[in-house]
Amino acid sequence: MYKEDLLASLERIKPYIHRTPILTSQLLNQKAGAEVFFKCENFQKMGAFKMRGAANAILKLSEEQKAKGVVTHSSGNFAQAVSLSAKNAGVKAYIVMPSNAPEVKKEAVRSYGGEITECEPLIEARQATADKIVATTGAAFLHPSNDLDVILGQGTAGLELLEDHPDLDFLLAPVGGGGLVAGCALAAHHFGSNCKTIGGEPAEADDAYRSLKSGIIEKNETSNTIADGLRTHLGDINFPIIQKYVDTIILVTEEEIVMAMKLIWERMKIIIEPSCAVPFAAVLKEPTLFARKKIGIVLSGGNVDLKKLPF
Amino acid sequence: MYKEDLLASLERIKPYIHRTPILTSQLLNQKAGAEVFFKCENFQKMGAFKMRGAANAILKLSEEQKAKGVVTHSSGNFAQAVSLSAKNAGVKAYIVMPSNAPEVKKEAVRSYGGEITECEPLIEARQATADKIVATTGAAFLHPSNDLDVILGQGTAGLELLEDHPDLDFLLAPVGGGGLVAGCALAAHHFGSNCKTIGGEPAEADDAYRSLKSGIIEKNETSNTIADGLRTHLGDINFPIIQKYVDTIILVTEEEIVMAMKLIWERMKIIIEPSCAVPFAAVLKEPTLFARKKIGIVLSGGNVDLKKLPF
Repeated sequence: MYKEDLLASLERIKPYIHRTPILTSQLLNQKAGAEVFFKCENFQKMGAFKMRGAANAILKLSEEQKAKGVVTHSSGNFAQAVSLSAKNAGVKAYIVMPSNAPEVKKEAVRSYGGEITECEPLIEARQATADKIVATTGAAFLHPSNDLDVILGQGTAGLELLEDHPDLDFLLAPVGGGGLVAGCALAAHHFGSNCKTIGGEPAEADDAYRSLKSGIIEKNETSNTIADGLRTHLGDINFPIIQKYVDTIILVTEEEIVMAMKLIWERMKIIIEPSCAVPFAAVLKEPTLFARKKIGIVLSGGNVDLKKLPF
Repeated sequence: MYKEDLLASLERIKPYIHRTPILTSQLLNQKAGAEVFFKCENFQKMGAFKMRGAANAILKLSEEQKAKGVVTHSSGNFAQAVSLSAKNAGVKAYIVMPSNAPEVKKEAVRSYGGEITECEPLIEARQATADKIVATTGAAFLHPSNDLDVILGQGTAGLELLEDHPDLDFLLAPVGGGGLVAGCALAAHHFGSNCKTIGGEPAEADDAYRSLKSGIIEKNETSNTIADGLRTHLGDINFPIIQKYVDTIILVTEEEIVMAMKLIWERMKIIIEPSCAVPFAAVLKEPTLFARKKIGIVLSGGNVDLKKLPF
């Protein structure tokens, strides 16, 4: 399912995204006891893999829908991804942001041409404000992770990894809303050779781990994790894909996340968000499982506040 | 002069270095009003271009010299580069370091197999201690910048840039001891097509700028710059090359260095040392000179203390 759609998605978004480099580090391989290939979506346009899903979903809209614009609610990378992808496609982007979102994030959205509507900093207020914009403008609502075209777009990061390294034993991605890991699982299933997909998740926001156990979409009562991109829960479109194609989810502590993040910064000399460090933390946590294996890891993004580093 | 030697140096060191990626950024191109190609020596083995010169000089030693080892004095990247290159070649490395050098730097040298001799934190004590090791062991002394094989090794960074982008109008490198900029100038002269080499130097350590004016090697009475790799002065081997082949040197302020460094961190998501940011600061400072030109910049290294960031 979706094999051809993945290939078509990659063709569709190619002109609008970077084919990001895949980096390796001898020292990190030694630490992991494995061969790790890092797919650097922190170098992606606007700084995160979200660009892939946003571009794919917007490019798939009908001309009629494009004329009416798109709307999303996000305080983070997806807001920027939708703004830039919409601009590239000549489409109007309405972005709902909580009134307490950092000015720097609002500025980034504006710089990409997104039109911001502020709302109360409550999850219900966000959806209600977005619904209102849909009702008045006819704009298409784009969900950051629970949308098939978004999922397929995110999966192209895994597809590119497997095009360059078809013999990966494992493909790892962080699990937040579930779009990236679901897309990567589809890519591994169709384009890997017995390549297993594993999600990395903070123990402090372990909703997806619990969801796989219980068989229903669980939520987080608290989500006190530095991996701020991974606080959200799964959705009804990506969850069945994750159930079917994701092998397991590994939980890591906050200390393990920060240590993995620091290792990647110091040894690879690249800037990654805390969320990105979660899969590598999972590799370091399970040395027996990963010993001498070939592992692809999607480094999801690099938008961090340099004034607020955890080390 | 040295055209064939540059090519031979690259062949010689190829098995021991990374051919580092060349990155670009649309946003930084917009800011610069030019097309900038960043040669990422921050991704080089041990984290800096110094690996090239050290490897080249050690591999060129006679078997007899190799059996007796090498010695250098350095508290920074060259100490690590010599240690690792010597280890690769099965050669003993004696590293003289000031007693107040940070423990983390000593640890890095040890991890690469270098044998540390501590000395008083004075420049005369360093050379005297190194001389003593040469006298007792017969080891070959390697200077970090004023050595022809080191210069040619560093120049391979520029050579690789020009192999991939033969139509560069300018090649820029930071100026510290002068090894990198001299090597790059040779590369630009022989392998560029009317490609001019320009050095970037902190105004707070403007010895090379003054040397080009006066025609003699000037020194810094003070060197109060964040670009700690650029506090040293030129030498009698690299200065004539710089006089002949470097077009000009552009001075930048501390504020301009920090701003350029922050831009590269935030927009390119890569970790660079303050010294690396100097050439890009120079490009931003002279928009008329560089308007619509193709510019290669060697990002010299990425070994920074994440606890001491200037922003």
